[in-house]
Amino acid sequence: MKILVDAMGGDFAPLEPIKGCLAAKAADPQLSLALIGKKDAIESCAKEHGLSLEGFEIIHAENVITMEDPPLSVRSKPDTSLRVGFELLAKKEADAFVSAGSTGAVQVGATLFVKRLPGVKRAAIGTIVALSCPVLILDCGANTTYNEDIFVQYAIMGSLYMQIVCGIEKPRVGLLNIGTEDHKGTDEHVKSYKALSALDGIHFVGNVEASAVANGVCDVLVTDGFAGNVLLKSMEGMSKFLLKNVKQTLNSNLKTKIGGLLIKKDLYGMKKKFDASEYGGAPLLGISAPVIKAHGNSNAYAIKNAIFQARQIVQGDTVSKIALAVKEFSEKTKAIEETKQG
Amino acid sequence: MKILVDAMGGDFAPLEPIKGCLAAKAADPQLSLALIGKKDAIESCAKEHGLSLEGFEIIHAENVITMEDPPLSVRSKPDTSLRVGFELLAKKEADAFVSAGSTGAVQVGATLFVKRLPGVKRAAIGTIVALSCPVLILDCGANTTYNEDIFVQYAIMGSLYMQIVCGIEKPRVGLLNIGTEDHKGTDEHVKSYKALSALDGIHFVGNVEASAVANGVCDVLVTDGFAGNVLLKSMEGMSKFLLKNVKQTLNSNLKTKIGGLLIKKDLYGMKKKFDASEYGGAPLLGISAPVIKAHGNSNAYAIKNAIFQARQIVQGDTVSKIALAVKEFSEKTKAIEETKQG
Repeated sequence: MKILVDAMGGDFAPLEPIKGCLAAKAADPQLSLALIGKKDAIESCAKEHGLSLEGFEIIHAENVITMEDPPLSVRSKPDTSLRVGFELLAKKEADAFVSAGSTGAVQVGATLFVKRLPGVKRAAIGTIVALSCPVLILDCGANTTYNEDIFVQYAIMGSLYMQIVCGIEKPRVGLLNIGTEDHKGTDEHVKSYKALSALDGIHFVGNVEASAVANGVCDVLVTDGFAGNVLLKSMEGMSKFLLKNVKQTLNSNLKTKIGGLLIKKDLYGMKKKFDASEYGGAPLLGISAPVIKAHGNSNAYAIKNAIFQARQIVQGDTVSKIALAVKEFSEKTKAIEETKQG
Repeated sequence: MKILVDAMGGDFAPLEPIKGCLAAKAADPQLSLALIGKKDAIESCAKEHGLSLEGFEIIHAENVITMEDPPLSVRSKPDTSLRVGFELLAKKEADAFVSAGSTGAVQVGATLFVKRLPGVKRAAIGTIVALSCPVLILDCGANTTYNEDIFVQYAIMGSLYMQIVCGIEKPRVGLLNIGTEDHKGTDEHVKSYKALSALDGIHFVGNVEASAVANGVCDVLVTDGFAGNVLLKSMEGMSKFLLKNVKQTLNSNLKTKIGGLLIKKDLYGMKKKFDASEYGGAPLLGISAPVIKAHGNSNAYAIKNAIFQARQIVQGDTVSKIALAVKEFSEKTKAIEETKQG
């Protein structure tokens, strides 16, 4: 199995991608890993930090898509590490691609060069949050429009992903909404609730309010990109804000400082328990080959986990299974409609 | 000044509304307060708890809108405490109305019976979260559609509210979005960004991501009801989840238990600092008389604060000022359009 890693993507590139590859290779020497990016930058960075690149393929790409570049620059900017990776993946010269680069560019590039699976209306970016249990939230991309057909496909793809990659036998699928009753939300939510309820083989648990996500009431949460973004970022912002304030409180006087020393280790352990980088990066579902968008601030540990996540996706034959499920569903829907019309 | 209080609204009615009125009256004996609800229920509850109703007007209403009743039952169900309150407010027999009843019914009832101010396209429910600073988030109702005209009115109304009621000289207005750049979000968000930037007398600070809300980057946050609901509930859910886990961590072994004892008081103080019930309930902005929706789980303290919030709204002549600002803005917009056409 050959996995491509964007050496230039993310806040700490190329150092952390290099270190992530080293960690992955140390844990699984069979893995074939290729680093894509400016060859001299990769080599001088490795040299500077005393890291050996032996056993890795280095694929040169002259340019980099920065965070300031618009998503479509993945098409207009020649020879970027992202584009080179997508083109190799499209030509089936590798099995998966991991990048911590710009989310928009990864989403656009995957769709433009690797293409969606037949019948998939929209590729979804799934983000895993790990609180009471890992929850795959999709879409967390920039798509703000949605309808029942898109949401049904998200449910099918997300459900398969959680089954294959996270080993959850019967993933519970929820629809993010402003209330649990079936009439809540926009017209599209009401229609989606009905369509998801009628879906064979999907364990739909109904509407899920944002307040319940942390409690682990579902394994897959279906949403549009706008609400998904608001959900994720507010959880992130709130947890940073609270932990900062707990820290300040612990530093406020001698008594709390002593108390703080006694609980420090366990509190840190608690924080670590909710670290979602354990689960790798954000998978792009509905694309015809595995693409993982690692978090922009990924360190070596996160990159290593994203590489193992890619391995798991490939080993589980996830993309083919998603392709088959989407095909079966659309054929069934078509048959039902033809029966109705006939 | 006469303020109406729904004695039957909320999870702890009529006891907490009665106690809230007593607390408000004790702090401000000049205040004229009327409790609306089933007279015998109010009186027997007061008697049972040894509370005196002397000095309060009791306005009888035979029925109650429960949390199970749909919002429109405020019109169909006769003689409910909510409806009686709205009708008295509409007839100007009182200056403000406070209810901890069903949000939907309060919003529908206020619009049906008290009516929107001339030119107001949609009344907004504002919710205050008190983290780094109090932030008024509006709309937090059930409205899921939006456009630039609605968002501009939210900005005008919210800005005046924070000026008059919270004493913020130049409230910073933000637009909830999935990125800070002006091209982010739906087409309506892009148009709203432009319209808000061009608004005279409003201190628009641009798009605000959900992660930044807790850090206090704005005083007024404009959003549609769907995203507002997701934002509020995820912040609420996340903070409950984290505090529960901190508590569990403190109870995990002898060392952390001792540490916990040392920091307990300060941690509780921290939690209390972020208690938004300090700021009362959710004001309905754009309605032609002051209506406050107190939280369903309001205790006496929250009801008292909602009453004082209503007093502040009345004293500050907030409704007239909002009416004037909306009128001036629509006249100005009309003049600009006529100039363009002419």
